[in-house]
Amino acid sequence: MELTKQQKQEIADQQSQNNQTKRVTSPELEKILYQAIPILDHGFIRVVDYMGDDTSVVQAARVSYGKGTKKVSTDEGLIRYLMRHWHSTPFEMCEIKYHVKLPIFIARQWIRHRTANVNEYSARYSILDKEFYIPTSDHLAAQSSNNRQGRGEVLNGDQAKEVLNILKDDAERTYKNYETMLNEKFDGSVIDENKNGLARELARMNLTLNSYTQWYWKTDLLNLMNFLFLRADKHAQYEIRVYAEAMLDTLKKWVPITHAAFLDYRIGAAHVSAKGLNVIKSFMNGKSLNHETSGLSKREWNELMDVLGKQDLII
Amino acid sequence: MELTKQQKQEIADQQSQNNQTKRVTSPELEKILYQAIPILDHGFIRVVDYMGDDTSVVQAARVSYGKGTKKVSTDEGLIRYLMRHWHSTPFEMCEIKYHVKLPIFIARQWIRHRTANVNEYSARYSILDKEFYIPTSDHLAAQSSNNRQGRGEVLNGDQAKEVLNILKDDAERTYKNYETMLNEKFDGSVIDENKNGLARELARMNLTLNSYTQWYWKTDLLNLMNFLFLRADKHAQYEIRVYAEAMLDTLKKWVPITHAAFLDYRIGAAHVSAKGLNVIKSFMNGKSLNHETSGLSKREWNELMDVLGKQDLII
Amino acid sequence: MELTKQQKQEIADQQSQNNQTKRVTSPELEKILYQAIPILDHGFIRVVDYMGDDTSVVQAARVSYGKGTKKVSTDEGLIRYLMRHWHSTPFEMCEIKYHVKLPIFIARQWIRHRTANVNEYSARYSILDKEFYIPTSDHLAAQSSNNRQGRGEVLNGDQAKEVLNILKDDAERTYKNYETMLNEKFDGSVIDENKNGLARELARMNLTLNSYTQWYWKTDLLNLMNFLFLRADKHAQYEIRVYAEAMLDTLKKWVPITHAAFLDYRIGAAHVSAKGLNVIKSFMNGKSLNHETSGLSKREWNELMDVLGKQDLII
Amino acid sequence: MELTKQQKQEIADQQSQNNQTKRVTSPELEKILYQAIPILDHGFIRVVDYMGDDTSVVQAARVSYGKGTKKVSTDEGLIRYLMRHWHSTPFEMCEIKYHVKLPIFIARQWIRHRTANVNEYSARYSILDKEFYIPTSDHLAAQSSNNRQGRGEVLNGDQAKEVLNILKDDAERTYKNYETMLNEKFDGSVIDENKNGLARELARMNLTLNSYTQWYWKTDLLNLMNFLFLRADKHAQYEIRVYAEAMLDTLKKWVPITHAAFLDYRIGAAHVSAKGLNVIKSFMNGKSLNHETSGLSKREWNELMDVLGKQDLII
Repeated sequence: MELTKQQKQEIADQQSQNNQTKRVTSPELEKILYQAIPILDHGFIRVVDYMGDDTSVVQAARVSYGKGTKKVSTDEGLIRYLMRHWHSTPFEMCEIKYHVKLPIFIARQWIRHRTANVNEYSARYSILDKEFYIPTSDHLAAQSSNNRQGRGEVLNGDQAKEVLNILKDDAERTYKNYETMLNEKFDGSVIDENKNGLARELARMNLTLNSYTQWYWKTDLLNLMNFLFLRADKHAQYEIRVYAEAMLDTLKKWVPITHAAFLDYRIGAAHVSAKGLNVIKSFMNGKSLNHETSGLSKREWNELMDVLGKQDLII
Repeated sequence: MELTKQQKQEIADQQSQNNQTKRVTSPELEKILYQAIPILDHGFIRVVDYMGDDTSVVQAARVSYGKGTKKVSTDEGLIRYLMRHWHSTPFEMCEIKYHVKLPIFIARQWIRHRTANVNEYSARYSILDKEFYIPTSDHLAAQSSNNRQGRGEVLNGDQAKEVLNILKDDAERTYKNYETMLNEKFDGSVIDENKNGLARELARMNLTLNSYTQWYWKTDLLNLMNFLFLRADKHAQYEIRVYAEAMLDTLKKWVPITHAAFLDYRIGAAHVSAKGLNVIKSFMNGKSLNHETSGLSKREWNELMDVLGKQDLII
Repeated sequence: MELTKQQKQEIADQQSQNNQTKRVTSPELEKILYQAIPILDHGFIRVVDYMGDDTSVVQAARVSYGKGTKKVSTDEGLIRYLMRHWHSTPFEMCEIKYHVKLPIFIARQWIRHRTANVNEYSARYSILDKEFYIPTSDHLAAQSSNNRQGRGEVLNGDQAKEVLNILKDDAERTYKNYETMLNEKFDGSVIDENKNGLARELARMNLTLNSYTQWYWKTDLLNLMNFLFLRADKHAQYEIRVYAEAMLDTLKKWVPITHAAFLDYRIGAAHVSAKGLNVIKSFMNGKSLNHETSGLSKREWNELMDVLGKQDLII
Repeated sequence: MELTKQQKQEIADQQSQNNQTKRVTSPELEKILYQAIPILDHGFIRVVDYMGDDTSVVQAARVSYGKGTKKVSTDEGLIRYLMRHWHSTPFEMCEIKYHVKLPIFIARQWIRHRTANVNEYSARYSILDKEFYIPTSDHLAAQSSNNRQGRGEVLNGDQAKEVLNILKDDAERTYKNYETMLNEKFDGSVIDENKNGLARELARMNLTLNSYTQWYWKTDLLNLMNFLFLRADKHAQYEIRVYAEAMLDTLKKWVPITHAAFLDYRIGAAHVSAKGLNVIKSFMNGKSLNHETSGLSKREWNELMDVLGKQDLII
């Protein structure tokens, strides 16, 4: 990621602010506020605002439960209790806003999380930057043969080279033709003074889905965790997972107690079905059910054995 | 409204915070942060946190517009443009959190605004305060004879006195019986050591709807304005309108430019139907349509004449 | 629950409809459409409309995955796969609408589920029915001594009698005073022709929280299951759980395959934290961790032992 | 739009259903249920399910109002009243589901309407159809010179031809390269048996934004009207407006009374600011304010004169 001189100056200006406030602050998050954290080849995330911290979760819970929370002696104990018992509303009392630069095909996945506020750079109004996502060759994986939404082995060198050439050539050609149709270059200079340019809202349709866009994305702490739970997961597409992982770091700086509880009760936890529970009980009683007698499908059986660390029982 | 000594101490503690932040701040709002603004006889609102200010709206819009905004020279011009053309998403980029104490029958109206985060004091866990809303006699209005959701004239003295007696007696009696069933007084003292108390989640059902509850209520700037548009309106019930009016003051302190645009384009604006537009055009062309030829119902006609300041044409 | 003659007639009229449609239908649900299923002493639920069935979930998933779903041979297999992997959007493609009559203190819990459409009977416009929830004596439980939101033992006979008397007396008195203030009886007859009645929007504040209200409540299949997961749970308050249980029956009639998957993967499933998983693995390897070495709090340990059927290890 | 033989068969099968139901039906909508209405060159909309009709709006409002509605004698009067006074919740009681095929750059606009349920064809799982939107030459407009989000004159013949050639060539080349990278043709045939194909979730990034995608899109009547208000507007981009206009026709078939009220109070209505109202009042009193004395910006003044049919006063 290369920021322009102007962008660097804007970020420096934002970071040099030193305001007084009676609001709660999150000191670790303040340290990285506005900073652009590079993701992929041209993307980034920046935390540009936030509201509340761990104590805001506690404060909201104590309003709900009133005198009933006296018994839970520590903030940490209370936050862990809330997380464990799916008491979700106190986590909605904190809010965070990111500025994100990301490829359009990833933006299309991301936007499916509806409980968030979004302002996206509009290619109806403005010319998109001349930047496209081109994967590194170690991320050029083949289609998985047994999982329709997954990746298999990395492509061999020759094929990887061919793929990279295609991606680069097509992105550059379509962008150049985008400029031709607009009759305007990405830097704003007019190509032919005697011609009109095609409307921006039309010309953009020629761009490829790896073009970068950017947006402001704001959500509350609960919905941020819902997003991270799905997108920091190993089954998520690599290109969105790297964003989620960087955001997981900002979560830790912002609300460290909530972050620790989130790792224990969500990211590292397992959801076991009624039938799966029967298998576990049987194992614990020394009467090992096998796949046939478990009532589980082969796939479910293997998923459960994986969760239980019984790799030898995967069939 | 009487705050307890403990509440006053908590507010003083919150107000004495003096933190450094790189976030934008709203200086006028900071001045009243955490302060309890009295509403009705025992209620209040307090702003307890916020995120963003007028510049956050502009910043979000400029991401939308990128380089395209050069022509809109000022922040004020842009905010007014956004408001006028119903570009709603930039206003979602600011967030505010209130602590509100309010009668339950008003809380039931309020909660119908779904796009907000709420943590309410739970009467399953804790004993509700011994506080009920009793209107002043000048708000004891009769049922309107021509508007099923409105109020008519104020009740005469004797009847008002009778109503106030009923409201006070019934609230006090049901609360006393609530304590009896709980076997516990509002101050936490046990009534009869040899008895169990009824579960709180059951005993609360004996309370009247004018009992006070409290909650944290958090929403974004757009949805706050949607709430205020409906609830600060003259047709809103008086007991919720006084909350909305106090919140309108906090809006002005928080985002003064947005507040001014909101008054011009929403609160003070009029929505005119296609048929109503025809009436206006006819008036302006000197060919006054009357009610019969307008195609409007009597009620619509009168509403339009009222908006146009033509009280003499109301039929 | 006693329906009025007029209500019975309206239900009979609705049920006698026999329309032709090209839409998918759910034959078992059609059988009970519009029928009032009694809940508590005066409440009910009625399914009054629906859209889609199990095949609609499948159809939506097949649009998402396109040719990718060919391998999953059966509708049941696909629905179970979706449920297991938290693929939530296909379940949003079905919609259901209930007419519900319920006590106000339960309506206040229910409304916290925001992703639903609601039209409630308005006591600003109309007079509320003269009906209050009075529990049967076997549901008059004492406050739990170890769980602030739970119930303990049933109250003894004398105390139960006292509580029931209070609840009945207070509900009847406050309702009678409600009529007095309105200057109108629940049947619409005016009490004193020479008096005005207090505005309905004010008089209602004198009613107790066990008064019955009613509403139309519409939601999609996903959010219905979210509601049922929380409210059909044994920790939910009895008075809302009975509604959830009746709705669970309607779920079974409507979408039997989804219902079965819901029981297996949600209602009967367990969520095990990272630390809890370590305990299970240790048990399965014959090296039983105990509470001290597990890193779990006492409460978490006991919850886990309960899920695993190890009642003897509860401490 | 060309449907495949298989698609035609599926539609015929769906249309041949003839089920009995006790639910309300909308006879005019039933006539076109499942039918593909062509939009643009390869797109379509199809209504594939619905719930409720005009009477469902009335029914929900009467629950809200209970006995209070006697004065509103007709369903039409009530629906018009609700629309005029922004009583939105009764319109949420109806639901509709569309199957839509549309270009990706339009899908990206459409998805910004968050209050809807969506299942989109996934290019992570499946190969996208070989179909791209290519405008007809009379829609190839130049960028507007005075409105950054608008279109100006149509491009002249030579330039239009050049643009069309670019759009076709680039779409075809990038699609061909998509197949090459996948090592699989759009018809499912493998290109080179000795090679792996690039993962679908990666290969898709090479496609241009005018590629067609498809989804199921479900929303309630209120949010459908919100969508149509913005997208059937003359300022909406042509390529989404044609979808909105076709949906407006389905609205008329589904809920004719609501549709008529929507045209009068929304589509054909005007929103006039406080300052704009002063201008109208001054005109009606014969003291014409001009732009300078009005306090309106030039743009606002012109918008108002346009609404009032005073084209001669536009400056």
